[in-house]
Amino acid sequence: MNPSELNLSALTLLQLLDRARGNERGSLARLISYVEQGGERSREVGRLAYPLGGKAFTIGLTGAPGSGKSTLTSALIGKLRAQRMPVAVLAIDPSSPFSGGAILGDRVRMQDHFLDPDVFIRSMATRGHLGGLALATPSAVRVLDAAGFPWVIVETVGVGQVEVEVAGAADTTVVVLNPGWGDAVQANKAGLLEIADIFVINKADRPGVENARRDLEQMLDLSTLGDWRPPILATVGDRGDGVLELLAEIEAHRDFLTSSGLLVQRRAERLDEELRKIVLAQLTDRAERIWQGPEVRALRDGLAERTIDPWAAADHIVAAVVAASV
Amino acid sequence: MNPSELNLSALTLLQLLDRARGNERGSLARLISYVEQGGERSREVGRLAYPLGGKAFTIGLTGAPGSGKSTLTSALIGKLRAQRMPVAVLAIDPSSPFSGGAILGDRVRMQDHFLDPDVFIRSMATRGHLGGLALATPSAVRVLDAAGFPWVIVETVGVGQVEVEVAGAADTTVVVLNPGWGDAVQANKAGLLEIADIFVINKADRPGVENARRDLEQMLDLSTLGDWRPPILATVGDRGDGVLELLAEIEAHRDFLTSSGLLVQRRAERLDEELRKIVLAQLTDRAERIWQGPEVRALRDGLAERTIDPWAAADHIVAAVVAASV
Repeated sequence: MNPSELNLSALTLLQLLDRARGNERGSLARLISYVEQGGERSREVGRLAYPLGGKAFTIGLTGAPGSGKSTLTSALIGKLRAQRMPVAVLAIDPSSPFSGGAILGDRVRMQDHFLDPDVFIRSMATRGHLGGLALATPSAVRVLDAAGFPWVIVETVGVGQVEVEVAGAADTTVVVLNPGWGDAVQANKAGLLEIADIFVINKADRPGVENARRDLEQMLDLSTLGDWRPPILATVGDRGDGVLELLAEIEAHRDFLTSSGLLVQRRAERLDEELRKIVLAQLTDRAERIWQGPEVRALRDGLAERTIDPWAAADHIVAAVVAASV
Repeated sequence: MNPSELNLSALTLLQLLDRARGNERGSLARLISYVEQGGERSREVGRLAYPLGGKAFTIGLTGAPGSGKSTLTSALIGKLRAQRMPVAVLAIDPSSPFSGGAILGDRVRMQDHFLDPDVFIRSMATRGHLGGLALATPSAVRVLDAAGFPWVIVETVGVGQVEVEVAGAADTTVVVLNPGWGDAVQANKAGLLEIADIFVINKADRPGVENARRDLEQMLDLSTLGDWRPPILATVGDRGDGVLELLAEIEAHRDFLTSSGLLVQRRAERLDEELRKIVLAQLTDRAERIWQGPEVRALRDGLAERTIDPWAAADHIVAAVVAASV
């Protein structure tokens, strides 16, 4: 390519990506901020990172607030670091206006790994842009993948629809519960069951572990499962109990996915889903711009006067979307 | 218009509509079945009915299953018929695969008004077509409006998101609760509070009415209300207690909407919202057709091989959507 043809901002993003791949944390953090902010620059980062990735294995971690996900993540990092594996963590909070390492959970997690150059922890919040976290998260994961992290943990703060969707879009999804967990996740129990590859009953030093396990087993018995039946582990995150077993189950699930061909298949399905979302977001974006214009104002007046019907008005707007796109 | 230019199927729909306006029930039921089935014919029915309507006042009625909505609707019909008002009822069930008068609720409601030619009761279920009930319901209401019913009651079976959305898209929305109502509607309490113009505590012959009323009043105190504070009524639907008061409150709300100018404003806002949904459904529909084609298959292969990135692939698909639409 002729250097004069180079887009300057793309060049800068390329440089940032190059530095991030050289383990420069400031550049990596800046790229993820760009992804978080959305817009054309975010897409450009995604474009540049995409061909460089495909090697990272992603773990989704979700569960009700207070179930001890952050402590468990920190313990998992410890076990992976004992194997000299670099680890990146994305903490996703759809409800928080804060991001960039400012939230409490980050500081708690950071304190154990603050000085470790092979651990990168970053929180992401929604900025209300189109598609939001459901589109930004895979892009951010791809940046971490391109930067060379073999393990990426995506942790969500709660069990809302978006959070379950985000945590479920990982290679292995861990659902964290507690003894007496029923009420905390009642609102989205079906969603959690659907995405779980591994169940963890954390804070298992409290009473009720066997009840919780029996409830889960019963629900699994009633579910349609494939060749993988989600195991149910008991952990005490802050003491590290059961964390090595959790990592072993994650690795067993990874081996299962690889040998069965499901890893390739599920990644392709996720990519399909993502592509659909991007297409829909772009079409919605175009329609929204037309919506602001004078033409639509005239159509709405016509609707109020019943000189035009909603379908004819919609046809006009769709035609305008198409015309504006050519 | 030159008769040779007439679309034959449009002519038939026009004839059906003409007969429905002449109080012929079979034609009316058939038009609503067409709307329910979706597709081009459904849009055509909507187009033809739209200029003929605008006179009906719509009541949305929602609440948890078992709260007694059907009995209350039947009682309301009785009071409206005592004023010689024709009434149409649409019973919306997003979860049911049945429709067309086959469900139990219909038969229960029908038995009191079966022989009355000025009462039309019809249930509608989703057929899984694009936009579903959120798009089909306003069209069906417009057919009933065009057929000359001055009152249209839209009753939903539960308090799920779609049902609250559908019931909330009425001129006056009545939320039906029971003494000790908290648990039954917990999952969507905020949604119900937002749409309610009138609260009814039905089955008020049971204990707990005053507690339920106090809870509601407290929640209203904490809400941002406009110039209308939703009244809280107590009814016993199967005895008819409080039903005349309910109708009086509905009429008071209608007068408030009319005199404040809110009726026109809210109808225009609903129409805006509907128009957005139609545009989005049409764009999604177009994208879905492209998605099935050979071009997208090639893009997905490229994605898997990382020779193309998701944003570039999305650009190609959006371009194909646009090209196919010209």
